[in-house]
Formats: sequence, C-alpha cells, structure tokens
Amino acid sequence: MNPSHLNGPVLVLGSGLLGASIGLGLRAHGLDVVLSDPSPSAQAVAVDIGAGRAFDDAENLSPELVVVAAPPDVTAAVVAGALQRYPAAVVVDIASVKVAIARELEDILGSGSELLHRYVGTHPMAGREKSGPVAARSELFNSMPWVLCPSEASSKHAVKVAHSLAIDLDAVVFRFTPDEHDAAVALVSHLPQLMSSLVASRLQETPAHALSLAGNGLRDVTRIAASDPALWVQILGANAPKLLELMQGVRADLDRLINTLSAPTAPGARLDLAQLMAEGNAGQTRIPGKHGGPAQQYSWLTVLVDDKPGQIAKLLTEIGDIGVNVEDLRLDHSAGVQVGMVELSVVPSKRLSLVEDLTERGWKVIL
Amino acid sequence: MNPSHLNGPVLVLGSGLLGASIGLGLRAHGLDVVLSDPSPSAQAVAVDIGAGRAFDDAENLSPELVVVAAPPDVTAAVVAGALQRYPAAVVVDIASVKVAIARELEDILGSGSELLHRYVGTHPMAGREKSGPVAARSELFNSMPWVLCPSEASSKHAVKVAHSLAIDLDAVVFRFTPDEHDAAVALVSHLPQLMSSLVASRLQETPAHALSLAGNGLRDVTRIAASDPALWVQILGANAPKLLELMQGVRADLDRLINTLSAPTAPGARLDLAQLMAEGNAGQTRIPGKHGGPAQQYSWLTVLVDDKPGQIAKLLTEIGDIGVNVEDLRLDHSAGVQVGMVELSVVPSKRLSLVEDLTERGWKVIL
Repeated sequence: MNPSHLNGPVLVLGSGLLGASIGLGLRAHGLDVVLSDPSPSAQAVAVDIGAGRAFDDAENLSPELVVVAAPPDVTAAVVAGALQRYPAAVVVDIASVKVAIARELEDILGSGSELLHRYVGTHPMAGREKSGPVAARSELFNSMPWVLCPSEASSKHAVKVAHSLAIDLDAVVFRFTPDEHDAAVALVSHLPQLMSSLVASRLQETPAHALSLAGNGLRDVTRIAASDPALWVQILGANAPKLLELMQGVRADLDRLINTLSAPTAPGARLDLAQLMAEGNAGQTRIPGKHGGPAQQYSWLTVLVDDKPGQIAKLLTEIGDIGVNVEDLRLDHSAGVQVGMVELSVVPSKRLSLVEDLTERGWKVIL
Repeated sequence: MNPSHLNGPVLVLGSGLLGASIGLGLRAHGLDVVLSDPSPSAQAVAVDIGAGRAFDDAENLSPELVVVAAPPDVTAAVVAGALQRYPAAVVVDIASVKVAIARELEDILGSGSELLHRYVGTHPMAGREKSGPVAARSELFNSMPWVLCPSEASSKHAVKVAHSLAIDLDAVVFRFTPDEHDAAVALVSHLPQLMSSLVASRLQETPAHALSLAGNGLRDVTRIAASDPALWVQILGANAPKLLELMQGVRADLDRLINTLSAPTAPGARLDLAQLMAEGNAGQTRIPGKHGGPAQQYSWLTVLVDDKPGQIAKLLTEIGDIGVNVEDLRLDHSAGVQVGMVELSVVPSKRLSLVEDLTERGWKVIL
C-alpha cells in the first residue's frame, strides 16, 4: 500500500460513480474516508463496497479535504456549504464545467470572500457510460487527465491538497484556468458530443435496410451519442457560452457547405468542398497521439480472423512473439459473414516486416 | 481454388486500389483478367502484382464482363464507351454514387437505349484510407457489403453477372434501387463524413494544451476526417441532392440548439437539450450490430494492462480460455502514462462472470 499524499480525514459529498471511486482509491491508501449522499441507498452501496464510512451528523468531523462529487447543478451550493461548515478544510469539486460554478460560488459567498482561498475547482476526465456507486472502481482515474483550475483566490495550500488528491488516484495532473478549461472541454468533449447526437438523431426515421450499410465510419461518429441525457443537459447548459462560439463556427461552415452543394457544378464549388475536407484533415492531425505524445500517423493493416473465441488472442500472441507493439486495435463490424477484420496500427517502420511475418504465418493481411 | 461464377474474360477499366483488388480476387479463381488504366504506371503496378494482364488495343477482346473502376467523375463516360465497344459484354461500375451516374449515362446514350440492358450500377463498400494498386488485396471485399443497383432497363442476365462478380469476391450482396442507395449512403457515409470534417476543422487554431485533454470521444468522432479530399469532392458533389435534405435537417436541429443555448436558463431550455440527446440515443441504438445482426447493446468492461507487447494477447488468450467471445474491442488512449486501457464488449449475460474470472486471474477490471 503506497503512502498517501494526504492525511485525511477526507469527506466525499456525493457517492455516485465518481465519488465512490474516489473513496475506493483513497481507502486503498489507508485514508479515513467519510461518505455522504442525499440518496441513502447510494450512500449505503458506496459504504458496502468499501468506499468509506457513513457520514454521521453527530460526529464532530474536521476533514483535511472535502470532495464535492455532486451533480453540476448543485455543486456550487454544496461547495459553499462545505466551506462554511468546515473552516479548516480544503474543498474541491469535480464537475466538468468550471466558470459557471466559480461564478455561482461568488454569488453565494460574495466575491472576495476569504472562504474562497480554500476552494479549488477540478475536473477528473474519467467519464463513462455507466453510473452509480456499483460501477465504482479505485482505478477509474488511473492515467486519466485530472485538470486543476485554481482561481486567483485559491491558496497555495489548497492547490497542493487538490494536487495530492489527483496523485493519490494515479491521475495525470493538468493545470488550466477555469476559462481555459471550459474552452478546452467545449472543443474536445461538448461539441463532439452535440455533433454525434445530431448525426445519430438523423437515423431515427430511416428505413432499416439503409442502416444495414452502416460501417465503422458511422459507428465511430455516433458512438458517444449513447451518452446519458440527464447529465449532459447540465453540462451543456453550464458551458453554453463557450459552446455557442464553436457552434456559430460550425453553422457558418455548414451554411457555406449547403450553399456549395446547392449548386455543386458552379465555379468554385469543387474548391469549396476540397477546402472543407482539407481543413478537416488539418484539424484531425493535431489530435495528440497515444499517452499524450505528439500526434503521430500510425500505419494501419487489417487481418482477417474467424469470429470465434481465441482467434484475436492468437493473432496478438504471434504479433507479441514477433516483438511488435500494437498501438491501436479495432474490430471491424463487417456485415453478414462470421469473419472478423482486426485493424491494427503500428509504428510505420514496423509495418512491412510485420505484414511479411504474419503472411508467412498464414494470416490473411490487408494492407 | 474455388471455381468462379464467371467465365471471363473480365476487363477491368481502372487499376487503382479497387480495380486492382478486383483483378487479384478474380485471378485467384483462375479467370482471365485484362487491366487497363489511363496511367501507364498504375497499370504496370497492377499487372506486376498479378491483378491481370495488360490491355492490348490490337487484341480483339470480347469480355463477358467489363468492370469500370474509374473515378466517379468519368465513370459514366467510361461505361458508355464500354457498352458501345463490347456489344456482348455486361458492364458494371463500382462508384459510390448511383443516381447521378445513371442520369449521365442516359444523357450520353439516350434514355431507352438498348445498350442500357447490359449495364448494372454497383457499389462495393470497401473504401479505405490507402489508395493505389500497391495497396490492393484480393480479400479487400471479403464479407463487406456490395450493393447492386440495377435500373428497370437492366436485364436479368446483367444482374446475374454482376451478382457473380460480388460472390466471387466473397462480398455480402445487397440490392437497392439507385435512389435508395444514394439516400442510404448519404445517411450512413456522406453525412457522417461531413460532420466529422466539420468537428475536426474546429481543431485547427486551438491551443495545443487544450487538445491534450482529447479523449476517445473526440478521436472517434473525427477519425474519418482524415479521408482523402480529392475523392470526397467527387462523391459529395455527385450525391448533393440527397445530402442537402439531411443537412437541412441538421441545420434545423443546430439552429434550435443554438437558440436554446443562447438562453440556457429559459423555460423549456432543459427540455430541448434533453430531447436532442434522447433523439441521439434513439438513433444510435438503431445501428445494426456486428455482422449485420440486429442492433444489440453489448456490455462494456475495461481492463488495465501494461502497454508492452503481448499484454493484450495474454488478456484475450485468458478470455478465450474462459470461453467468452469478445464482440468489440478498443484501446483507450490515456494521457501521459504507459498504461493501456482495453475496452471490451461482450453479450450482457457473460459480463459479470467474465469480470469475476478476470479479477480472480489478477486483472484490474473496471466495469
């Protein structure tokens, strides 16, 4: 058991997926974790799985750290309450928007309030489809980004404690201003979510036989359209200003495109389309590579395998024997036939030799 | 070597990725394949890799089938030329749009032309990032959809020959009208491409540190934004009418959304956002599952593995031993740390027991 960077006790307000996972992670360091949730059942489950002990109003608790893991809507009020009730505690929240919550907090406590010295807004980026304490795991934040968004009022001590929390949970710490954070997540998370939902909503009234032609392109673009509406309503609403900027840009591009496609043979139409596609190419290549490294173009190859247990394992075992590291791997959903296509990406320098080795070993490889 | 459903000779006009792959696949059945390409080097490469023999203008060739594998822009003209030059041949094209080409063809030959009896428009859905004959593989169409789009003029014989081509190449045959086809690919292929490019183009001028927060959501939505502009300009332009219908719908939703987010606290705003998200949920669940089966919600779990060769293989080997079939698999690109997250989907009934078995075997599983 590694020693914690915290002393505790740590009070976690909200024992859903994130709150309970934080509790489990801190308990693994032997810290005293106290859990409280307005839902008695959620709190009971979190306690049952070992995420901490139940909050007792009678106990005169003096936590080193209060982690507010409440829904975005009520986060600011809960943070304010914690700052007032626990005068020695550092208070952090983990909501996925930061500017709106900072504003609400100043409205409640008054801007310039001394209490704000002990508050640090944070955002662990470990969202998932599942929710609730049952899905909680201590490894949830392992190697995921955890953004610290201290305000000018935040004390050095408060930032240090927030940093220790993220480190204890094996997260990768980033430091953004609240404004930088909201602009960043609007771009890398909220806009993609909206666009994915917009594409998926087009699929509602379409004949099923049209969808039988769906390939990985559609699946990739619409995967996150399966996200939980209840949570996203709060997130999108709270980050509306940053989102609006981006959506105005998207609408301008969309209008340009609609005009172009309304007269696809007009002079310049081809150029417009080519430019939009090229802009997409340029933006896409800026996304950092695996493990936050610089963006890298990996070389892809596709291998045909029988769609039964063990086949992909056999393939990857042999690739491991060959000594090549698979950078990314996806299963191709091909229609109708029980044959799987495994798409592998490797560093370009390894691709050709890997193709030769696999072909020698009898695999059907498509470059 | 399986017997072919064709007799040959087969003339393939255009020896890029698709034309050369068709040649390789037909040669594997022992058919006489003749290749012709306006680019001498492309033709030479295709011949070198064994996709067929070079076209000889002096030879008095009488092909059973002519496959037009030219760019969409010139497809109709090449088809018309082939129908005129080879009075005994069935002629198919493989362009990814069908209505525009059928119209062009009637403009060239005159609607009601007898020549049109021998033509069938088709679309093998095996596009990839790579292009050119070097990337050609005989398995390219294996278990992928191949849409036959006969017109009312197409003869039974012509449809049968086109069907034999798709079967020879181990594709899964679908039959759509040209109009149904263009509407379907606009929805499942062309609109997602445009939306992906629109999202990715937003990434061009953003500060790099914002992109360091990018997760799988953004990567999935923008993956196809890397596609080749030159080809897509022709595809989008040729399917403009069908695309416009969809884009008008997207713009209406986008405008609705922009209005809602302009006053996120107004009455009904929450409901609007929730409805858009719910519509996305509803559409996304309609996408058919693996192998064209009915859409199914698989249960996901995530396993932490060291990011070195053989680890994922080891995991999948053990899952194979446990006897569970992995329906889908993705590597999570986590930032900064050399730990991989393997996301697995399995049929819901298998999930809990698999989690227990893997945990017993010492794997770190995140439900």
